[in-house]
This record gives sequence, C-alpha cells and structure tokens, in this order.
Amino acid sequence: MPDLLADAFERIQSEVDGAFDAFLPVPQDTRARLVEAMRYAAIGGGKRVRPLLVCATAQLFGVTRQAAVNAGCAVEAIHAYSLIHDDLPCMDDDDLRHGKPTLHKQFDEATAVLAGDCLHALAFDILTMPDTSNDPFVRAELVAALAKASGHEGMAGGQMMDIVSDEQNYDLRQVTRLQQLKTGALLAASVEMGAILGRIPPEGRTHLRAYARDIGLAFQIADDLLDVEGDEEKAGKALRKDEGQGKQTFVTLMGRDAARAQAEMLVEQAGQHLASHGSDAALLVELARFVVKRDH
Amino acid sequence: MPDLLADAFERIQSEVDGAFDAFLPVPQDTRARLVEAMRYAAIGGGKRVRPLLVCATAQLFGVTRQAAVNAGCAVEAIHAYSLIHDDLPCMDDDDLRHGKPTLHKQFDEATAVLAGDCLHALAFDILTMPDTSNDPFVRAELVAALAKASGHEGMAGGQMMDIVSDEQNYDLRQVTRLQQLKTGALLAASVEMGAILGRIPPEGRTHLRAYARDIGLAFQIADDLLDVEGDEEKAGKALRKDEGQGKQTFVTLMGRDAARAQAEMLVEQAGQHLASHGSDAALLVELARFVVKRDH
Repeated sequence: MPDLLADAFERIQSEVDGAFDAFLPVPQDTRARLVEAMRYAAIGGGKRVRPLLVCATAQLFGVTRQAAVNAGCAVEAIHAYSLIHDDLPCMDDDDLRHGKPTLHKQFDEATAVLAGDCLHALAFDILTMPDTSNDPFVRAELVAALAKASGHEGMAGGQMMDIVSDEQNYDLRQVTRLQQLKTGALLAASVEMGAILGRIPPEGRTHLRAYARDIGLAFQIADDLLDVEGDEEKAGKALRKDEGQGKQTFVTLMGRDAARAQAEMLVEQAGQHLASHGSDAALLVELARFVVKRDH
Repeated sequence: MPDLLADAFERIQSEVDGAFDAFLPVPQDTRARLVEAMRYAAIGGGKRVRPLLVCATAQLFGVTRQAAVNAGCAVEAIHAYSLIHDDLPCMDDDDLRHGKPTLHKQFDEATAVLAGDCLHALAFDILTMPDTSNDPFVRAELVAALAKASGHEGMAGGQMMDIVSDEQNYDLRQVTRLQQLKTGALLAASVEMGAILGRIPPEGRTHLRAYARDIGLAFQIADDLLDVEGDEEKAGKALRKDEGQGKQTFVTLMGRDAARAQAEMLVEQAGQHLASHGSDAALLVELARFVVKRDH
C-alpha cells in the first residue's frame, strides 16, 4: 500500500474512532449496556473505507475536514448497524467480525438488535449536527442521500435479494444488480455525500457516480474472490461461506480469472472517470486500487 | 369518543394508509417480499395516535395537510419499525400485533429485522421529500427531532432500560424516566414536529412540550392499567405480561386507583397547557382524554 493511502487510512481510522468516542458517552443509567454495545461495534474496527471515500471526495472541493469526518461517521454508523443485524442468528449467524466476537455473541441478541437500531438513528442525528454543515440545505441533502442508499431501494433491499438468493438461480445481471444495491449503494452514497458537502449540484456529480459504481462492483468481485482465496485470520471473519451455501457469485458465474480481470478493468476505468481532477484525485485513485488488492 | 375525535381518527387512518401505499410500491424483483413485509406492518394497523398528534399540532399553525401527514407517516414508520423489532423472539417474543400475526410469524425473522430497518430508513427518506416541506431548514429540523427521539437517547434507550428492568428493582422515579424515553420521546417528537412544520422556534414550543410530557406519561399509565384490566381481543395483542415478568410498572408501584387518578390529573393538566390556543386546541385536548380512556 503506497504511503499516501496508508497515511490516509491511519488518519481516518483515528478520526472516526475519536468522533464515535465523542458521540457516544456512556450514560450513568441502565442504558449503559446499550451504549457500550454501540461503542463495541463503532470504535476500533473496520478499515473505514466509506469515511475515507467521503473525505477523499470532499477534499476535492475544499470541504472542512470536520464536516467530512462527521458525514463519514454517519455512513460508517449505517455500515456498522448493517453488519450487526446481518450477523444475527436469524440472518447470516456469524460469530466473528473484525477479528472479535460478533455483537450478539459478546452481548446478547436483544442488545444487538437495539444497538444496531441506535447506530441507525445516530447516523441521521450526526448529519443534522451544525458542525456537519451549517447549511440546512446541505444537511437535508445528506440525509436524503443516506436514507435512500440504506433502505429498501438500496443496501437493505440488496440484503433481501441476497437472502432469497438460495432459492433463486441468479444470472450475472441479477448478481450485479444485487451487489449494486447491497454494497454499491452505500459506497456511492459516500462519494455523493462528499460532493454534497462541496455543494456540487447533481449534474456535476456524474463522473463521481461513475467512479463509485465501478469501485462498488470491483469491491464486491474482490470480496467474492476473498471468500474463495482469502485467509480467515487476516479477514477477521468466516470465509468459504458462498461455496457452502451454493450461492451464485461473480466468481461462480465468471470463474476466478475472468472475475479478477473484470475487477482490474473496473479499477482502471474508475480512475479514468476522475481524470479531470488531475493529481487532486490521487487518493481516490489509490483507494480504487486498494479495493481489489486488499487481503481483508 | 366525541365526533370531533372519531372523525379525526378516521381521516388520519385513511390518509396514513394512502400515503404508505404510495411510498411503498412493490418492486418487480426479489425485493418484493421485503416491501410486502413493510406494507404488512405499515398499512391498515394501529390507531395512528402519533400522526394525529403531528396533524393536530400542525393545524394550530396553519401547516398544509400534506406536509403534516408526511411528517406523521415518518413518526409512524419509526413506531412501526420499533414494534416489529420489539416483537422478535429475542426481544418480547410476541405472536400477535394489531390483531394479526406479528411480522416474523407472518414472514420470518430475517425479513422482520430487515423490514424494520427499511421502515426506519423510510422515515428519514419521507422527511426529506420536498412535499414534506419546501424549506430545507424545516426538513433538517424534522430529521434532527426524530433521530434524537428514536435513538439511544430516546425510544430505543428506553427499550433497553425496559429489557434490563427484570434484573433491576426500579422505583417510581426510574419507571417514570424509562417510560418518558420509551413511549414519551416519540409522542413528544410528534408534537414537536407539528410545531417545527409551523416554524415555531424552540422557545415558542415550551407549552407544547409540557402537553406532550403529560400525555406521554398518561399514555403509559393507561397502558399499564390496560395490561392488568384490558381485553386481549380488543387490544389485539397479548396482555398480562408485566405481572408474569414480575415487572415494576406504574400500577405495581402506585396501585390501580392512584395510577388512574394520576393519569386523569395528567390529562387535565395537559389540556391546561394549551389554554392559550382556546378552541383551536380542541382536538389535542380530546386526544389527551382519549389516551387514558382507550380500551386498546
């Protein structure tokens, strides 16, 4: 990983941890357990790809760091809640996440459902804070983008398509659509929110949306490859799950080599969409490359 | 129930059902099951007390009906998601809600978790629609009020206090605090959002907040009485649950007679807070009375 990207990850990880620590003081009453659970899920885990996407995009448009980190935390709170709920016994029934016991294992299922719900609400709470933006129009736009990307028309809708995929025999078009919703929508929202903070109107975001669409798909292809080839210890979660469930993925539908070639093509293309920004977009270009090279 | 209130309930029930029907077209793909589940929970059930509170408050300030109904649907979407998650086996494990099988009984647990999450996101999506308000400041304020009221500092925090109440021996002060969060916060947000739509600044909302606080507590005392004295068929849900769990409630801590007297005192007081609005507040006053008289 080049220094530019390694430094950027280190910085955002520390900023996001610090922000969640400040957002989530533990109350002196019986809600303490709930807030402890939220902190367990939100602090000290995950690569923070989504907050970095928000910040790297916002940086193109001279947005203050504080605003971008806050918006990044909102996306990350949505991502964290979705992982908690996805890991539940009635969903994927996973025991391990970011190398630690999943939330319902460490606490209990009821606390996991509630802590997820509270991180969900926290995301929108953060977006309406004055230090996220002092312009209410920007705040309302951020909320609209994140609500749309996370609900039934986005991430959660994709999760539903994934759940029923055992009974379906999805083709490549359908798997692509599923992943565009399940993973792509929130990655795209991250980029979109960086542009919203920069007061870029929708028609000025076309190339950013194209970048986001490409890295979203590349990300998921890489995830499918990782499920087949990855190291469980580095990944910090259970792998080889797709095969066990007989699930259609980019790898089963395309084969490993074609999948890898496709991911690399998408990353190349993603970088080209940002050509007009020149070297200002170096971090976003590196981030696109990282998405397919990561081993966890 | 006087005609004024009966007519208002009939109208809001039909408006909320119509709005959710329009918000939730069933997609032609494998997300259909998810959206069907959202519709099952959101359409044709519940008294719609919260949307009526939004509309009755908004009406004091000349807000358009469409805006008030939309904001009411957002609160109701939060309420609906919380019921779905509360009913889950790992939470209250209930089989019956609004006289129908609970969502996880009718569909399955994974769908219930996701449908709840999607109604949660839909709430914020609705609040950012231009026909909820064409003023982004109002939209952002609505989001802030609802996010705060529903997260760990509000409804979900109260739910956590309720979950751990078996191990605790709450006194009256603690039960009051729990209920102010669990039930009161969302009722208060309903009134607050009506005032936000009316562009009433925070300092002009004090009497409305006082009204909301009083009816919130009265509502919960009535709920505790209903749990002891009510008819399961009319209630459309399981009753006598508090007793079985050895839980402290207003009824166990105060006794039935004192609890009933307290609820009636609160309703009286709630009405007095609105004296300055004269007969314009008749619907809110009737609604306060209904809260303690309802048999379901």
